[in-house]
Amino acid sequence: MKRLDQSILTNTIRIRPDDSYKGTYGRVTLVGGNQNFGGAIIMASEATVYSGAGLVTTLTHPDNSAALHARLPEAMFADVFMESTPFDSLIQSADVVVIGPGLGEGPESVNLLRNVFHLITPDQTVVIDGSAITILATHSVALPDARLIFTPHQMEWQRLSGIKITDQTEAANQAVRDQLNATVVLKSHRTEIYTANGIYQNPLGTPAQATGGMGDTLAGMIGGFTAQFANTDNAVMAAVYAHSAIAELLAQNQYVVLPTQIIRQLPQFMHQHQAN
Amino acid sequence: MKRLDQSILTNTIRIRPDDSYKGTYGRVTLVGGNQNFGGAIIMASEATVYSGAGLVTTLTHPDNSAALHARLPEAMFADVFMESTPFDSLIQSADVVVIGPGLGEGPESVNLLRNVFHLITPDQTVVIDGSAITILATHSVALPDARLIFTPHQMEWQRLSGIKITDQTEAANQAVRDQLNATVVLKSHRTEIYTANGIYQNPLGTPAQATGGMGDTLAGMIGGFTAQFANTDNAVMAAVYAHSAIAELLAQNQYVVLPTQIIRQLPQFMHQHQAN
Amino acid sequence: MKRLDQSILTNTIRIRPDDSYKGTYGRVTLVGGNQNFGGAIIMASEATVYSGAGLVTTLTHPDNSAALHARLPEAMFADVFMESTPFDSLIQSADVVVIGPGLGEGPESVNLLRNVFHLITPDQTVVIDGSAITILATHSVALPDARLIFTPHQMEWQRLSGIKITDQTEAANQAVRDQLNATVVLKSHRTEIYTANGIYQNPLGTPAQATGGMGDTLAGMIGGFTAQFANTDNAVMAAVYAHSAIAELLAQNQYVVLPTQIIRQLPQFMHQHQAN
Amino acid sequence: MKRLDQSILTNTIRIRPDDSYKGTYGRVTLVGGNQNFGGAIIMASEATVYSGAGLVTTLTHPDNSAALHARLPEAMFADVFMESTPFDSLIQSADVVVIGPGLGEGPESVNLLRNVFHLITPDQTVVIDGSAITILATHSVALPDARLIFTPHQMEWQRLSGIKITDQTEAANQAVRDQLNATVVLKSHRTEIYTANGIYQNPLGTPAQATGGMGDTLAGMIGGFTAQFANTDNAVMAAVYAHSAIAELLAQNQYVVLPTQIIRQLPQFMHQHQAN
Repeated sequence: MKRLDQSILTNTIRIRPDDSYKGTYGRVTLVGGNQNFGGAIIMASEATVYSGAGLVTTLTHPDNSAALHARLPEAMFADVFMESTPFDSLIQSADVVVIGPGLGEGPESVNLLRNVFHLITPDQTVVIDGSAITILATHSVALPDARLIFTPHQMEWQRLSGIKITDQTEAANQAVRDQLNATVVLKSHRTEIYTANGIYQNPLGTPAQATGGMGDTLAGMIGGFTAQFANTDNAVMAAVYAHSAIAELLAQNQYVVLPTQIIRQLPQFMHQHQAN
Repeated sequence: MKRLDQSILTNTIRIRPDDSYKGTYGRVTLVGGNQNFGGAIIMASEATVYSGAGLVTTLTHPDNSAALHARLPEAMFADVFMESTPFDSLIQSADVVVIGPGLGEGPESVNLLRNVFHLITPDQTVVIDGSAITILATHSVALPDARLIFTPHQMEWQRLSGIKITDQTEAANQAVRDQLNATVVLKSHRTEIYTANGIYQNPLGTPAQATGGMGDTLAGMIGGFTAQFANTDNAVMAAVYAHSAIAELLAQNQYVVLPTQIIRQLPQFMHQHQAN
Repeated sequence: MKRLDQSILTNTIRIRPDDSYKGTYGRVTLVGGNQNFGGAIIMASEATVYSGAGLVTTLTHPDNSAALHARLPEAMFADVFMESTPFDSLIQSADVVVIGPGLGEGPESVNLLRNVFHLITPDQTVVIDGSAITILATHSVALPDARLIFTPHQMEWQRLSGIKITDQTEAANQAVRDQLNATVVLKSHRTEIYTANGIYQNPLGTPAQATGGMGDTLAGMIGGFTAQFANTDNAVMAAVYAHSAIAELLAQNQYVVLPTQIIRQLPQFMHQHQAN
Repeated sequence: MKRLDQSILTNTIRIRPDDSYKGTYGRVTLVGGNQNFGGAIIMASEATVYSGAGLVTTLTHPDNSAALHARLPEAMFADVFMESTPFDSLIQSADVVVIGPGLGEGPESVNLLRNVFHLITPDQTVVIDGSAITILATHSVALPDARLIFTPHQMEWQRLSGIKITDQTEAANQAVRDQLNATVVLKSHRTEIYTANGIYQNPLGTPAQATGGMGDTLAGMIGGFTAQFANTDNAVMAAVYAHSAIAELLAQNQYVVLPTQIIRQLPQFMHQHQAN
């Protein structure tokens, strides 16, 4: 297992070419947020926008649209329950789909996940987070053929992989990753990233981050980073590293670091760590 | 009566261990906020999140969900009028339940209080604030067997205890506290805390705090502190002290200090006063 | 006509006594904000809260409650269309009623104004702003017997007083003020205040303030100041002066000064200009 | 083609005369924002208000009113689907109408555009942005006789003008502009402004701006600037230049610059670049 260091940032975050436009930085569609967990998909969407994605659309329960736009007018909104034509197009036109934050696990959420996966094509990247992982572990839902990124915490990984937390060794985890043919971000005190080309550990992280919404925020950042940076695994690792690095900076003066505070720091932090 | 001093902070606010996670810092469910008083439960919820609780859910009238998430996506929302299954689980899975801010005193609020108390188990902490205290004073509602914390102002205490404001002596108050077997935060110009192990006075507080929402904010802080710190009475006293100390700091430059301004200072203030 | 100067602030804004509480600083109920002009009553309510009123309730169209609480959880909300019992109590328990910001001029607004005025008692202060002034000028609505404060701009004053703008001399204005037995804040480039004891001119004000919502904000400040400071005319004049003084400070660095930016400065500004 | 420089700001942004009022700075009505794209019309409205327009009304889908007022109480709201009487008046009383941000392209949007154009009179300025341009390119809608400003990006201009992006030469563009008798802001890496009196290029702009909402924000700024400054072409060019100049300033420290961050800088930036 290799330890990530700051070079993952400068190796990933590209100084933007002068002649570029919104399309250069990707179209991200986020799917999640039922009536209870609207905050989760809002935080994920904010993280995607503040990390620099070109165009962001949030597919969520209509009860969440007012709060989404009150916080983030930069995102477009669509009702997850709308008829299929625009729905299909919003999924299919995306470079990256983030699904799971605040999605819930009820029958409607299961159907939604199935419908989204059914529309995915191989050139797309799919970030699978939170409830979406639990649904996959408990229901029969066919995984799409695409670049898949899973972001489970240890219990979600146990559910999905069948490996108990105490048995989650590098080898066992990597074997399941190989079956999934995915990038796996296994979140814990020291998050591990399992890729086709090796296993990486994030050495950063602070207990000030131990508060609700951190995972939703990371999923949104991964969506934003993979939409912009060509090497998907590097983009994932840079997002993980940046998320913790910002938290550590804020924790120098804060007892608890809130997810939305990390998000607000993204534009400055990424500016400081960009390179050609 | 002992006077609190700054040592209550360093004796209570623990430097967080590196290897900790959301669950370490407790699950808090707040119940309140009818159609008129949504702001009260929003402020209480913000105070709980910004004081560092691990997971926060706000059970409130659905009219309040958009404003809650517009201000605080970190909190989860649930409709107080939903069917019983998830309701029961949200109460029962909580380490701390805060009930009362903006709850109102109508028949629905009385039923709600009764339903919540019916679900409480002895290992839980319950913060009883505002309208919940008035309902208890005027209706027959059985108190749960749990760690109870009451946060009345003097008139609410008169209603609950039967002791007129002018007769609220230490001995009289402590006698009722003994019957209640609770921690009582008697709010006034100089707030007093009645515990099983003695009576404490908060020497801080500023008239700049004399504005609506201060009590809701304190109730939320008590929820957040008791969720994180093992000694419940110390957690209550540290919350009371911190609330006033932050207000005094802000009042050095402000004619009035708003509750939401106190909340925003919590992460920095707690960082400055943590200890091992 | 006397020119106001900075002494109106120190003569009015009292250093708060240590032993005071919410009730000391007054209960203000604001009435206004139809479906179109919700922003007006929100800004007025913010100005009331940030100027230090003890308890603030906003009676408005229910479409405005989410935005009100998203910006200002410190205010309580009530639906202007609710049944009469709580409505009557919210008007009658107020020390100060501010009516008019964003009220509109349709039949429902006329009825509402009539109902509110019918409930007012002589010990109350009523700030009559915006649409409420136009309604009074065009409909038969009996003025209540109370401390009345009108805040017309010149055209509204023409409608109410019958004096054309070009004829609005001190003597003519004061004669109508005498009939109304009210304090009149005649808003213009150099606002004039007509009182039972003389006429005053505000020497401050900047063209950077020439933007929508300034009047709503002033009405809210007058509500907050009269709720706190015993001399009503001084409170009105201090609010007018402070409103312009803060705008001038901000205009040193801003091309336009927004009402909500003035509001945010109130706690610091009032702190700097308080006296015993 | 002439290159714009900083003198366009000082030649346009007038130091405000002392004796001026809201009406001096114009009444702007913005039309747009369907259920999906509420954020677009909110950002445009914010840009109009923060650039100093006197009175701003936002005609949008009612689902957007809560988020609009939560962010921007300074704007008035009206439901685009209301009956014709107030609708007509809100369009006809405006000095400037901005139509298009988040309007959508469905049948209701086409009707709305047609209805608005039908009401426009020659003394009005109309900023035609986003979906409104696409509708014009694909439906038969008569252009009003008024000062018209189009703000297409290159693909929208291709649709409207029939000139393919690769063929969009100065001469070809100017020929279509002459037919339209309009000011055309052709947005790209280096935005070009086609006027009756020449063609101008904006030399500023940063790839940090390549994110959703930039165009909506520019449209709102053009609305605000043309409402205030007498020379329409200069106002358009100053808005284009200021939009990029602020973005460049922020990009010195940010990897991505969000539209709402540009908006917040407008009052200070315009203050620094005003002249007599």
